[in-house]
Amino acid sequence: MQSLILSRRDLEFNLYEWLQVQQLTERERYSEHSRETFDAAMETCANIASEEFYPINRLLDDQEPRFDGENVSTPAELKPVLKAFCQAGLIAAGQPFEMGGMQLPCVVEKACFAWFNGASVGAASYPFLTIGNANLLMAHGSAEQIKRYVEPMMSGRFFGTMCLSEPQAGSSLSDIRTRAVRQADGRYRLFGNKMWISGGDQDLSENIVHLVLAKVPDANGELIPGVKGISLFIVPKVLVNADAGLGARNDVVVAGLNHKMGYRGTTNCLLNFGEGKFRPEGEAGAIGELVGEEGQGLSAMFHMMNEARIGVGLGATMLGYTGYLHALDYARHRPQGRLPGGKDPSTPQVPIIRHADVKRMLLAQKAYVEGALGLNLFCANLVDDHATHPEESRRDEAWLMLELLTPIAKSWPSQWCQEANSLAIQVHGGYGYTRDYRVEQFYRDQRLNPIHEGTHGIQALDLLGRKVQMQRGAALQALIARMTDSIARANAAQGEGASQIRAHALAVQHGQKQVLLTLQEVRAHPQPELVLANAAPFLEAFGHLVLGWIWLEQALVAQARLAHDPNDFYRGKLQAAQYFARWELPKIDAWLAVVAQVDDTTSVMQDGWFSA
Amino acid sequence: MQSLILSRRDLEFNLYEWLQVQQLTERERYSEHSRETFDAAMETCANIASEEFYPINRLLDDQEPRFDGENVSTPAELKPVLKAFCQAGLIAAGQPFEMGGMQLPCVVEKACFAWFNGASVGAASYPFLTIGNANLLMAHGSAEQIKRYVEPMMSGRFFGTMCLSEPQAGSSLSDIRTRAVRQADGRYRLFGNKMWISGGDQDLSENIVHLVLAKVPDANGELIPGVKGISLFIVPKVLVNADAGLGARNDVVVAGLNHKMGYRGTTNCLLNFGEGKFRPEGEAGAIGELVGEEGQGLSAMFHMMNEARIGVGLGATMLGYTGYLHALDYARHRPQGRLPGGKDPSTPQVPIIRHADVKRMLLAQKAYVEGALGLNLFCANLVDDHATHPEESRRDEAWLMLELLTPIAKSWPSQWCQEANSLAIQVHGGYGYTRDYRVEQFYRDQRLNPIHEGTHGIQALDLLGRKVQMQRGAALQALIARMTDSIARANAAQGEGASQIRAHALAVQHGQKQVLLTLQEVRAHPQPELVLANAAPFLEAFGHLVLGWIWLEQALVAQARLAHDPNDFYRGKLQAAQYFARWELPKIDAWLAVVAQVDDTTSVMQDGWFSA
Repeated sequence: MQSLILSRRDLEFNLYEWLQVQQLTERERYSEHSRETFDAAMETCANIASEEFYPINRLLDDQEPRFDGENVSTPAELKPVLKAFCQAGLIAAGQPFEMGGMQLPCVVEKACFAWFNGASVGAASYPFLTIGNANLLMAHGSAEQIKRYVEPMMSGRFFGTMCLSEPQAGSSLSDIRTRAVRQADGRYRLFGNKMWISGGDQDLSENIVHLVLAKVPDANGELIPGVKGISLFIVPKVLVNADAGLGARNDVVVAGLNHKMGYRGTTNCLLNFGEGKFRPEGEAGAIGELVGEEGQGLSAMFHMMNEARIGVGLGATMLGYTGYLHALDYARHRPQGRLPGGKDPSTPQVPIIRHADVKRMLLAQKAYVEGALGLNLFCANLVDDHATHPEESRRDEAWLMLELLTPIAKSWPSQWCQEANSLAIQVHGGYGYTRDYRVEQFYRDQRLNPIHEGTHGIQALDLLGRKVQMQRGAALQALIARMTDSIARANAAQGEGASQIRAHALAVQHGQKQVLLTLQEVRAHPQPELVLANAAPFLEAFGHLVLGWIWLEQALVAQARLAHDPNDFYRGKLQAAQYFARWELPKIDAWLAVVAQVDDTTSVMQDGWFSA
Repeated sequence: MQSLILSRRDLEFNLYEWLQVQQLTERERYSEHSRETFDAAMETCANIASEEFYPINRLLDDQEPRFDGENVSTPAELKPVLKAFCQAGLIAAGQPFEMGGMQLPCVVEKACFAWFNGASVGAASYPFLTIGNANLLMAHGSAEQIKRYVEPMMSGRFFGTMCLSEPQAGSSLSDIRTRAVRQADGRYRLFGNKMWISGGDQDLSENIVHLVLAKVPDANGELIPGVKGISLFIVPKVLVNADAGLGARNDVVVAGLNHKMGYRGTTNCLLNFGEGKFRPEGEAGAIGELVGEEGQGLSAMFHMMNEARIGVGLGATMLGYTGYLHALDYARHRPQGRLPGGKDPSTPQVPIIRHADVKRMLLAQKAYVEGALGLNLFCANLVDDHATHPEESRRDEAWLMLELLTPIAKSWPSQWCQEANSLAIQVHGGYGYTRDYRVEQFYRDQRLNPIHEGTHGIQALDLLGRKVQMQRGAALQALIARMTDSIARANAAQGEGASQIRAHALAVQHGQKQVLLTLQEVRAHPQPELVLANAAPFLEAFGHLVLGWIWLEQALVAQARLAHDPNDFYRGKLQAAQYFARWELPKIDAWLAVVAQVDDTTSVMQDGWFSA
């Protein structure tokens, strides 16, 4: 039976036919790997995700975490599922062998983890947050910190969180107020409130390692305004002794749980640090250890941001993907209505997948979710190229491309896989609106993704305000060079599907030209804030262009294979690519018109003009 | 304090400055009315909606209706709220004086009811379904049926439902299997299952009047395939005696409740008719009375469909509208971040409404929801013109326009006010994703609207397959004539805002031309099913054109008023109109490209090509 989480065939197509990740094994870091070891890791994940995570996904939604004023509790079914994940060694999937890891390339690790995102995003958050936390400490922590905190995370004894936002400081991190007061022994005592902390408390792990952004007061006890004063601290829920045993309870407590529309499997907390409920070592204040140097907290945090954002993008992709597969399955089995020309009501009804409008909705979903998966795996592959490509110029290019594509990898699936999830409901009709079918949960879970890890608006500003301009446009040029190469290959295509691919390439070329013209128009504008006011439609346009190119890339592979291996999988890829080229790419011009004209409609709008 | 449900000012603008509904009082049917009586009715509704409905909206979501296998129960807070509605005489708001009604024009009635849709769509459904039921019986029932069933509905003693769908027959009504067996006394016994019955059972009214579509078996006991054999029946939950007292329990029972993502205030049931649990008059079978003639059931039902669909459109509009007002209120009070050029982190944070991207999100919401309200009130006004305009040609024109615009009035708000609800969440950031704020409920409630009363796909087929072609395009010509008139008035505009309005008119003119060219392209296509396969993007394009025109109409009024009365309300209208013209109308070309080329991407797609 086919999985309703993810298509193995599509994953293989992405990894081995398109991205050729088997070639990574030629690099020293991955030399002990082979396609077989990659496949084995993915198969392990597919099995654990299908057998452990998928069955509890609905339950985690129905039985929200509870807080009795003291402790947070999660459904009893969750803990063994996470244990299965940890026992398979997956927390360390990307870590080096010497850390007990599998030393998998990022692209394979993400392909592995996609299964869990699709099976139960609420359950998967706990290990994924832990992995992000561990990666950050691996890069910026001391050897002792790695030993004390990362190693227990690798085995699944400890879980990790990221504590950035505060009630008054969401997107605006420069306004955080949590204080970290330096102690005589070199440690710090933290005081403040942290909001939106996923996994901020739970009853699933022995300990919780909070990574906390806070400010160290200056000599006058004042906090430095802005982001420069931000430092990063490890604040464990329970202090860890020198012998790695657990010590006293630290002064960090849950003030409340957030009750969310979806994503309910993951606890989300308001945490109070240093309010004195616990008095470790005899006094109030959450004991923390500095990571790296004072004032470097944000840069350490943002060092991991590309991967974290690709992670969100992949989570969004997988919610869309599993929704698509559920809708496809439903459409194949639900009889309703008859085809045009066969309206005789005495004949049996046909499965709804035969109706053109249902095919439209499925094809749109396929185009969105498979495109988004391609983009996210492509980006993960760039992480690998940046880290391990033998040629320095390719390492640099990978980094530039990654910087440029990350806002798209995060925002595009968050938006368009939400549309996919909406279409999955629509395919189900009334049934899709009930909690008897899974698609309504996907739709609710998905809605978080344009908000966390940098809102949609933040991604847009990052793209138009920084990324397309960085290094005098070098990142953009790198992408354009890749696109131009794809277009050239498309133009040289022969055989079945060649004319379709050439038309697709033409649409990408047009979009590319329009994006470049638009950037030229706005570059020298005397009021850059007016240009940035239209960052959102630029993000839309650029995102669609990138996806149009990802689909061109996949179509090129499918078209070439089709000549030797005429099968339906490749035809489906070509058709989805064509859908994207014909139905989606024309939208680019509409978005760019606003940007190119430096339209001032939103800038000029005043508070008092909104409905009186 | 301003309402968070609906803007009184906007409602007045629509009714009195744009649609000039005060002129309706010159018609005989409304001659006892005046602007004062209209305003009084609306003010009553605003008060009851704000004081009774709005406060329980969240509660109705939290405390879903329950079914113990025997009875359905709703939260105790709901009944007195509905009582307040009924006691104000609002069920009969549109009925003639002699029925105890207020004899309000449809457009004023809809304006009144908008308050309840915005305050609590889940609570409002019960009286609105009852009104739809009563209207149908007023048009097609016998005098005795009106007396027996409609009068108790008018006073709120009985509530009504519509029973169309069955588990195997949702959009495909020709496949219903409920049997209505003629009895010797002229009544019928019904046997079958009805699905998705809103208000199908409840503990709120003394009785429930089900209007049921069923088929009368032929002489051989066979059901006639197709829609021609469908008849309409009154099936009360409790039989009504000749003396109007309640008699025996009829053989219709709840088989189960549907548990929905949203819209939870309204019960939604699977009903079993004639399974024998109750044996009225000694035997199994739900006793029903025929409405009108046998075989005329669907046409009676569809007679009311325009109004029902405008009702759904208005419900969708109001969910978007209240979400917008909540987001606006939040944005005015939430400080976060600083403006470009004022990034000094030691300065206070600004209310987020000052950020361009937040203004974009609010302006988009304003454009969607106020435009949708305008369209729905315009359509309600057409209902009045069709019924009571003194000139026959205008009555005919109104009917044509109504037929054409109904699919848009239903589908456009269902789609774009969902986008507005999504933006309302986005303006709230993480808070918008929690159940502590109301916007997440609106988003869940809204998702029903593209499904019920004819799915989005059904509306698209209705528009492209029937409405634009009806009477050799007469409906379309009527709309084009109106648009052309608006464009001419825009071109003659003088003074502040005139150039903006002319640009807007140009964009509408372009859209209109493209729509007509597209229809010309596809009209003679040898495979009409290929054309209809792209009905969905045509619906998008046509909907945006219509809304672009509605906004042009509103901008014309605002621009003219601005010359004499320079106030912010009119500036806001002009700015929202400009937003729609510049940001939204350019999308039309992208959708039409697919239609005009008779793109076969979805038609050609095959089941087996979807991911293998």
